[in-house]
Amino acid sequence: MLSVLVNGQECKDPAHAVAVHDRGLAYGDGLFETMLLAWGKVRFLDAHLRRLAQGCSKLGIDYPGDDVLRAEIDRVCGSRSAGVVKLVLTRGAGARGYRPAPGAPCTRIVSLHEPVESPSSIRVRWCRMRLSRNAALAGIKHLNRLEQVLAQSEWQDPEVEEGFMLDSEGELVCGTASNIFIVRGHELITHDLRYCGVRGIMRGEVIRIATELGIPVREEPLWPEDLETATEVFVTNAIRGIRSVTALEQFTWPCGHITQSLREAVDRDA
Amino acid sequence: MLSVLVNGQECKDPAHAVAVHDRGLAYGDGLFETMLLAWGKVRFLDAHLRRLAQGCSKLGIDYPGDDVLRAEIDRVCGSRSAGVVKLVLTRGAGARGYRPAPGAPCTRIVSLHEPVESPSSIRVRWCRMRLSRNAALAGIKHLNRLEQVLAQSEWQDPEVEEGFMLDSEGELVCGTASNIFIVRGHELITHDLRYCGVRGIMRGEVIRIATELGIPVREEPLWPEDLETATEVFVTNAIRGIRSVTALEQFTWPCGHITQSLREAVDRDA
Repeated sequence: MLSVLVNGQECKDPAHAVAVHDRGLAYGDGLFETMLLAWGKVRFLDAHLRRLAQGCSKLGIDYPGDDVLRAEIDRVCGSRSAGVVKLVLTRGAGARGYRPAPGAPCTRIVSLHEPVESPSSIRVRWCRMRLSRNAALAGIKHLNRLEQVLAQSEWQDPEVEEGFMLDSEGELVCGTASNIFIVRGHELITHDLRYCGVRGIMRGEVIRIATELGIPVREEPLWPEDLETATEVFVTNAIRGIRSVTALEQFTWPCGHITQSLREAVDRDA
Repeated sequence: MLSVLVNGQECKDPAHAVAVHDRGLAYGDGLFETMLLAWGKVRFLDAHLRRLAQGCSKLGIDYPGDDVLRAEIDRVCGSRSAGVVKLVLTRGAGARGYRPAPGAPCTRIVSLHEPVESPSSIRVRWCRMRLSRNAALAGIKHLNRLEQVLAQSEWQDPEVEEGFMLDSEGELVCGTASNIFIVRGHELITHDLRYCGVRGIMRGEVIRIATELGIPVREEPLWPEDLETATEVFVTNAIRGIRSVTALEQFTWPCGHITQSLREAVDRDA
């Protein structure tokens, strides 16, 4: 961690900074965003803040407002031109018990981390861990992430960059930290996330750009069998961009031209 | 909060005690126990530590060992004779990203709170929030508790003590912070928690005592319709013991003699 602000205060001792009774810690009662700092600018900041505000609305947490968060993100980035910005927003400190006290101030943690390197094409694997279904929590980036933690614990092979996750009914929803797109014919298809998964910022960007480029996009239930007829497969993530999936057990796919043109268009837009 | 130990150290400033990058905060990556201190003794301590150790095993967290935890619980209770002891165990501080680093030391937070008063019979309501299903997480008391938080946010009426929760398929699993038993004929029935819910310590105690008293207990799927044929309904919780449920919308039940005899047997055992 390069620097961190907690509730707008520079944090001298990040190891002792959060309340023992913070509800983020007690119950995962909060949200987060992970954003790319590149060429001195946080990419898709508007979209990240919009998703965060939507998450707050779903959880009944008072959104602190764009201005406060933008200012703190600016401060934590300082003069750095590249990195990863993480923003955690919890319902704040509270008494014991699940019921939130109304109107308690939330906790804001904004931190800057080293940039990451990402290959443009990757191998993936299946995860045994399933995603549970709850439409009330689907799409938002809340702090209840044990399923992703346990899914990523299933492998250590650094050659395998991502794991594909099914939900409890067997739908192919997403990667542990990415959304999945498949190309079939001239169409893009991605899971509709109606019961689980995170409505990714890069996912939204790909849908927007594909539509501009005249590539139809469908958001609908996906199943493992859909991989059999896919001509290209890629995953998206706000930090790592668009990565071609070239292998998953018996499947192999090329790093195809639709994936490449989308990646170029996203890079051009930066 | 009356007193708190973090990793065995007395915590002078509970508002600034936990790392900003603790995985409990980042992902709800941990477990907790809430225990009753009564007459200077923590009730069912063995059972609480056993469930915690099982949770560690499921999540792949190194259990710190009974001796360490018993000593810290003793210290935090001091000479107090009554209260609530909360123990939070997280996977500890970590770098950004879901995958846990192997062998990192966990974070232990042991805190003592004021005792609570509980009525012996209560009114309950239905929650709209559903419980999601994930057999890999069922039964353990992990820190991913947004569903319970949002369920308890559904009402403020202090006359209504608990809310009943269905899972995504409509089974009647548990209260927001309790397990449910129904009496039918001379049998006890409680949900089997195969997909969600917490394997409550008082639930286990009731099953043990009922069996000793010659009352058959079945653990199986429960449905809302099962309430129609129930002659008694009660909920269990380690802090609040056994509470008769006397009203839920159109339903009313007596505080019946099986519930009363179980409550007396649990109290006798203390």
